Amino acid sequence: MHIVFVLFDNVTQLDFTGPVQFLSRLPGAVVHVVSKDGGAVTTDCGFSILPSAGFADCPQADILCVPGGHGVRDAIADTAIVDFVRQQAKGADYITSVCTGAFILGAAGLLHNKKATCHWAYTQLLPLFGATHAPARVVRDGNLITAGGVTSGIDFALELIAAISGENVARTIQLALEYDPAPPFGGGSLASSSDDTVRNLRADVYDKAAAEMKIAIQQII
Amino acid sequence: MHIVFVLFDNVTQLDFTGPVQFLSRLPGAVVHVVSKDGGAVTTDCGFSILPSAGFADCPQADILCVPGGHGVRDAIADTAIVDFVRQQAKGADYITSVCTGAFILGAAGLLHNKKATCHWAYTQLLPLFGATHAPARVVRDGNLITAGGVTSGIDFALELIAAISGENVARTIQLALEYDPAPPFGGGSLASSSDDTVRNLRADVYDKAAAEMKIAIQQII
Repeated sequence: MHIVFVLFDNVTQLDFTGPVQFLSRLPGAVVHVVSKDGGAVTTDCGFSILPSAGFADCPQADILCVPGGHGVRDAIADTAIVDFVRQQAKGADYITSVCTGAFILGAAGLLHNKKATCHWAYTQLLPLFGATHAPARVVRDGNLITAGGVTSGIDFALELIAAISGENVARTIQLALEYDPAPPFGGGSLASSSDDTVRNLRADVYDKAAAEMKIAIQQII
Repeated sequence: MHIVFVLFDNVTQLDFTGPVQFLSRLPGAVVHVVSKDGGAVTTDCGFSILPSAGFADCPQADILCVPGGHGVRDAIADTAIVDFVRQQAKGADYITSVCTGAFILGAAGLLHNKKATCHWAYTQLLPLFGATHAPARVVRDGNLITAGGVTSGIDFALELIAAISGENVARTIQLALEYDPAPPFGGGSLASSSDDTVRNLRADVYDKAAAEMKIAIQQII
């Protein structure tokens, strides 16, 4: 089972590093972490990632997974990335994304008439690709699975593991990675956060970031 | 605020990539991801990480964080790594570890007479370093904070953010990274997993892995 993660500069690294930690434990999994030319990609956290291969050396994915991040704005305009995702998706059993990685799937035409999700601050942009936002942390529509922001990729990975190898395998990997989450506070979603927290975070970060993402999307659709 | 993550070959990458995603959003944070010579380190997930610096170019840490993984067996025998951790710890406000990274702190003499934790399959080895295992996902003893296995690093990071910058900042970062965990099943800890799941995982992986770690520790204490 070939699991392919598609990386690009300025990726939000936990979008990818969370799922890959879980999915790499799937029985029979062979993980491929690929970038356009196989060279290092920058992350949002001060380090870079050295992929295992470039697009040209990547086998057909059984599971295709695209993470997000601010780098998505440039990635959706990069035909090498979008064409690779579109081509890989044709032969994949599962086409998946985490966070704003959904927009790369969208740029490849894979969200049209689909239910999908992404990071909460960007869900209003999904209809630009013909998708309908489904308000859940992990959304499945046929062989398309899209996850919400960043950490939702871990829950997505466990759901996918269970779908492929059953609940016992998922629970075993969950124990191996000690995933019994205990955030010190509630919150972490729009519904569970205070109005002040949401308003301030939009004003400080996401009003501008979502506006910039919208412009980038409008330039390619 | 300098936050230093100490990497080595065969690190369990989510031990580090989880906390760094959260801690890098701490106001005033400057993240340093360092390896002995500044070169790439291998991870357990098929890709490598290019650090931001080598030990020689790393400033004094305010927060020192050491992740774990199977590479810990070699890392605790590497005096360059252990000496760097011991030296950095002298000037750090917080000395922290995730998973079996605790044993690198132990090798540097930083666990003696301390309460600590690590991945559930290895907690019986903590007394080899003079520590007492405290059965919690995140354990604080003075300026030493140790977290359990892998994903516990995310909860550790949020607790540390709250301790430094307050609950509102922690909740804001939690929302930005959409950390409202929803594992599809219960489990993820010894207490919440079935006896069968625990027994099989020990037999398949951790009996051998913990025995090998014990031998490695006995060779250096």
